Amino acid sequence: MLHDPNRVYVFDTTLRDGEQVPGCQLTTPEKIEIARELEILGVDVIEAGFPVSSPGDFMSVVEISKAVTAPIVCALTRANKMDIDVAVESLKYAKRPRIHTGIGASDMHIKHKFNSTREEILERAVEAVKYAKKSVEDIEFYAEDAGRADVEYLAQMVEAVIAAGATVVNIPDTNGYCLPDQYGAKIKFLKDNVKNIDQAIISVHCHNDLGLATANSIAGLQNGARQIEGTINGIGERAGNTSIEEVVMVLKTHQVLGLYTNVNSKNFFEMSRMVSTQMRMPVQPNKAIVGSNAFAHSSGIHQDGFLKNRENYEIIRPEDVGFPSASIVLTARSGRHALKFHLERLGYKLDKDELYETYKNFLTLADAKLDINDDDLQKLMSHRLVKN
Amino acid sequence: MLHDPNRVYVFDTTLRDGEQVPGCQLTTPEKIEIARELEILGVDVIEAGFPVSSPGDFMSVVEISKAVTAPIVCALTRANKMDIDVAVESLKYAKRPRIHTGIGASDMHIKHKFNSTREEILERAVEAVKYAKKSVEDIEFYAEDAGRADVEYLAQMVEAVIAAGATVVNIPDTNGYCLPDQYGAKIKFLKDNVKNIDQAIISVHCHNDLGLATANSIAGLQNGARQIEGTINGIGERAGNTSIEEVVMVLKTHQVLGLYTNVNSKNFFEMSRMVSTQMRMPVQPNKAIVGSNAFAHSSGIHQDGFLKNRENYEIIRPEDVGFPSASIVLTARSGRHALKFHLERLGYKLDKDELYETYKNFLTLADAKLDINDDDLQKLMSHRLVKN
Repeated sequence: MLHDPNRVYVFDTTLRDGEQVPGCQLTTPEKIEIARELEILGVDVIEAGFPVSSPGDFMSVVEISKAVTAPIVCALTRANKMDIDVAVESLKYAKRPRIHTGIGASDMHIKHKFNSTREEILERAVEAVKYAKKSVEDIEFYAEDAGRADVEYLAQMVEAVIAAGATVVNIPDTNGYCLPDQYGAKIKFLKDNVKNIDQAIISVHCHNDLGLATANSIAGLQNGARQIEGTINGIGERAGNTSIEEVVMVLKTHQVLGLYTNVNSKNFFEMSRMVSTQMRMPVQPNKAIVGSNAFAHSSGIHQDGFLKNRENYEIIRPEDVGFPSASIVLTARSGRHALKFHLERLGYKLDKDELYETYKNFLTLADAKLDINDDDLQKLMSHRLVKN
Repeated sequence: MLHDPNRVYVFDTTLRDGEQVPGCQLTTPEKIEIARELEILGVDVIEAGFPVSSPGDFMSVVEISKAVTAPIVCALTRANKMDIDVAVESLKYAKRPRIHTGIGASDMHIKHKFNSTREEILERAVEAVKYAKKSVEDIEFYAEDAGRADVEYLAQMVEAVIAAGATVVNIPDTNGYCLPDQYGAKIKFLKDNVKNIDQAIISVHCHNDLGLATANSIAGLQNGARQIEGTINGIGERAGNTSIEEVVMVLKTHQVLGLYTNVNSKNFFEMSRMVSTQMRMPVQPNKAIVGSNAFAHSSGIHQDGFLKNRENYEIIRPEDVGFPSASIVLTARSGRHALKFHLERLGYKLDKDELYETYKNFLTLADAKLDINDDDLQKLMSHRLVKN
């Protein structure tokens, strides 16, 4: 395989890991609509479901396979023949099918979930990849709970599944446990110690239980991973998955990393709102990149600096993620300069004395009313018969 | 000063950096209520407001100073005498007052916000600290936009303000720009190159514009900082500040870091809901630590493993942050094992054949209805006249 070493592939699991959240379940037509929008956004892989889990999930993978052309369509399985058979069947209309199979890699999972041994689990992993490979060329293997797995055993497992035909190896931090330096070191260890590692792409799949999913994903990329898995708005079980929009904008903002994706970030805002509405999953106003306040500046110090030069307080241009413009709301903490700016925007020119008086009235009003909008400003100036 | 080298101080700015968000403004009685709850939570410092900015803010600092005893009460100022005079006045009832003064440290801020030079800004910084020190012993200095500041100049500034009497030096990533390794390296540079650095505590104040605030704060602590600044629920301008609950739980979960805070994490859930309600600022269900789904497990694979051993999928016990218990909602992706568990919880014991049949009916229902609750399970079993 030849890959551009600076290209990062984006694997969207909004419709699988995201959709399994309580209250977020979608109908097949809703999933198709989101899949089509993900294709426009430019993601490389759409994980469309876990076909063996229910008839509805199976049909969704079938219909999404028919509905999109450019992205790889991926189906999740456990490491057994029945799951893989059902997944292969569900992908029969996919132009670019991928099977995503795997098994637990941590001793915690091996002992307490599978009641098994490292040797037996390794064998099951290899068998599953070989079996899936008979039907589908593109096989991604997940080493579940890799974040807590012994790194030597993990390396052994990764080497074995690549030898068995895996094209992508996914190293999930299933429980959102790792610190960025720990997770980065794990990826680096695999890159340095797995002999056949260059025959596959390393994928990072992080969860946000400690608020570190984006940082862990970036640490993985800095150490050699070239696929990131995540969801729109960071939805997903518990505290959710990595937010695709955050990782993409980190790479765009930090060109020094030398990495890029094919995602068109200008579609993020619309994509975010579609997923939020359909899944009935609100995006908090202070959500990075796509929250309604993500570009809102309100305090006096900040507004003053912001109006002088927007780069003082803005590292991402709102239009780059599909916001129409940075919104400013006046409050009791807004400075004189911000008040003057907004009054001028509304057509009022004030000399220094009048601004001083108006600002005093403004502060009294703002202490009482909290948010000050254009109507309030008009009322504040209602004693004036003409604007100038 | 003698400090336990493993103790991390928690500086809460919910009532200052958090409160200046559009729509989040509080009345003084509401602020007092939150301040009292923050005292119970065990934060070390409460930043109570920016007194010069409005009469309401001034009064809030006065009243919070009267209302709490254990935490340091801190008031924000710019680097000028008027701001400092007003702040000193507002803190007159504080048992442990702190002035938080500072100025821009990046060339971007120096040139475009202050239209000044590095030399002049350094002088103003030192003057402000010296002036504040005449009235208050505990002086924290913030080097605004330190995240983008030249590190040599930043070191020079930090050394000068410590010499002038600063007890805490705050290195804010004002725009949420840094990557964790960059931010950590900046703190390490100060620790290694500022001669008098051990006479002050280094504080980290991060913003979440790229989703990296928690990771950056941890990187700062790993490199020698010992105070973290943040808010409850990560509220704050734009994408918000560091979430205090996330940093505290990272330190608790990763004992290998050898750091601790005095915060009582069992109060997080209640604190989160109080701030969200009073500030009219929703917490998204997938918010780490305090979101309503933060401990919800729904997929079949996960529920099965979870029911076998909760540590398979749970790195934080919900009761440690004040959640009553991990909630499980059944969906079309729930496995047979999870269904059996919940039916038994409701008093239904099923043999293998009956479970098989019931599971088929369950999947049909779950595909149609999406979320399955206890009422639905009772209906599913309504053909039974007795439970056993």
